[in-house]
Amino acid sequence: MFELHPRLRQDCIVLGRFSLCRLLLMNDTRYPWCILVPEREDATEIYRLEDNDQTQLLKESSRLARAMYDAFHPDKLNIAAIGNLIPQLHVHHVARFKDDAAWPAPVWGLGTAIPYQAARLAAVHENLYSALGEDLCWMR
Amino acid sequence: MFELHPRLRQDCIVLGRFSLCRLLLMNDTRYPWCILVPEREDATEIYRLEDNDQTQLLKESSRLARAMYDAFHPDKLNIAAIGNLIPQLHVHHVARFKDDAAWPAPVWGLGTAIPYQAARLAAVHENLYSALGEDLCWMR
Repeated sequence: MFELHPRLRQDCIVLGRFSLCRLLLMNDTRYPWCILVPEREDATEIYRLEDNDQTQLLKESSRLARAMYDAFHPDKLNIAAIGNLIPQLHVHHVARFKDDAAWPAPVWGLGTAIPYQAARLAAVHENLYSALGEDLCWMR
Repeated sequence: MFELHPRLRQDCIVLGRFSLCRLLLMNDTRYPWCILVPEREDATEIYRLEDNDQTQLLKESSRLARAMYDAFHPDKLNIAAIGNLIPQLHVHHVARFKDDAAWPAPVWGLGTAIPYQAARLAAVHENLYSALGEDLCWMR
């Protein structure tokens, strides 16, 4: 049975579900940072998913990427499947700005997360809701 | 017309071509590090490629991922499209080992590349050739 890795559960806010992936928001106001986690037990690498799941992950990643541009208007999106510390397959989507805390370096392992306060979180929720609408099954 | 970004041309060795992407090897012996560059002018984000190209990029990425496991037997593969410094769309595939120079951190922006010497480069070529065979059009 699929269960979200404890570290992801601790560091992130669950936003909802696409048909394959759970959509998480990293609890870090420094960057709009979403994570897709395919709901497949023991998945660790994209190429080891079944072909249909790989295609679906790509679709959900591209849907999310477009939504993040619509919602946050970043200068660049950084997409990555790393997993050196958390083996459960998860794909980062980080909206990057030329004046953000890490630019032009990647965000992983830099500094300390700044958790959301309620009002800011509600605003991000609202932005993503406007951009994704009913394409996501929301868990708010 | 598609032309490889000068910085990629400078930092990498061109290995060959899949049907969509050029396959590069980062000239850095610290990690087996391949890069896929879709041969599409002005491409910067995966989700903005045409649907067929997105699917083909996924196929080539998964083919390369499997080959890198076969060739190098890493502990983990790190796959990422970042592009904060080089806007031309390129997808990193880095074979990671628990005893490599950066583990468990990501490799980007850490330390200085150690260029290949001829013998070591030939060995990597040979490993990848064994794993990819004629699935790649080689430019050696």
